[in-house]
Amino acid sequence: MKKMKIDKAFTLMESGPVVLVTTNDGKKNNVMTISWTMVMDFTPRFAITTGPWNYSFSALKKSKECVIAIPTVDLIDTVMGIGTCSGADTDKFEKFMLTAVKGKKVKPPLIEECLANIECKVIDIVKKHNIIVLDGIVAYIDDKRKEKRTLHAVGDGTFIVDGRKIDRRKMMKSKLPVGV
Amino acid sequence: MKKMKIDKAFTLMESGPVVLVTTNDGKKNNVMTISWTMVMDFTPRFAITTGPWNYSFSALKKSKECVIAIPTVDLIDTVMGIGTCSGADTDKFEKFMLTAVKGKKVKPPLIEECLANIECKVIDIVKKHNIIVLDGIVAYIDDKRKEKRTLHAVGDGTFIVDGRKIDRRKMMKSKLPVGV
Repeated sequence: MKKMKIDKAFTLMESGPVVLVTTNDGKKNNVMTISWTMVMDFTPRFAITTGPWNYSFSALKKSKECVIAIPTVDLIDTVMGIGTCSGADTDKFEKFMLTAVKGKKVKPPLIEECLANIECKVIDIVKKHNIIVLDGIVAYIDDKRKEKRTLHAVGDGTFIVDGRKIDRRKMMKSKLPVGV
Repeated sequence: MKKMKIDKAFTLMESGPVVLVTTNDGKKNNVMTISWTMVMDFTPRFAITTGPWNYSFSALKKSKECVIAIPTVDLIDTVMGIGTCSGADTDKFEKFMLTAVKGKKVKPPLIEECLANIECKVIDIVKKHNIIVLDGIVAYIDDKRKEKRTLHAVGDGTFIVDGRKIDRRKMMKSKLPVGV
């Protein structure tokens, strides 16, 4: 995994991939699958929606840190498996044979098997709506990985795999911060 | 366009497609392109991030209504065009030859050319983070439309087109509300 410019980390999230979010409650690592995410700025600032019904929430609230790890299509059954069991009674890193890699700025681990990882700090929790606001602080991408297609959850148990790319960078240039 | 069950409207949004959001300020219709969106529940409740820098924002704030319209890949240049000019000096419905269709519950129009449309009410504005919280109240899908592939904005001017689908509905069943 190679570090990437943090200014470009929003481009890892904006297309809406299903992500894995790792946490550490001071005792052990945990990971959840989530597709309720949103880019909020170019800074990069992200929102995720989760709450007390989710076992990872208390670690997130307490430690104010997490890592967003972005899996690809070859990990579909890992993504589903993680999303359908609970850290309350399962060591998900062991069960799904994930390699926890130490980050630079936060305690929750990066996931070696993922395409990209973003170390994040919890900036705010909007309790009324169960929205967690995050700032990405260090980002990594495994650009030697062959499979780069991410997954998009439809929400009903079906997933859309990344298809072809379309380039409209010239048209977009006026809207972007310098350097993106 | 055919009405669809509102309980399933979150499945139109969860994969993270680029959307068009229509508003009406009491005088005229407007439309913006947005990819900073998030599903927040199965109800369906959505968040979008936008603020005073965006011309549509004042109409959204004043009328507390909008329509989320979901375009497909054939509309890429309309999506880009809408996103790179302003309603302040442009009638975007005229410029991009969009057909405004009257909704059932809100004043901003549906867009005939889109795959799906969701009439929404603004439930809350989280000012601190420029997050608009919306409830979808009526949803429509054009299921006779041949092109159904949506677009996912990477954020740098490139777009990912929907590729193949993967079915994991059986594994997901335990997590979903009845009927979805």
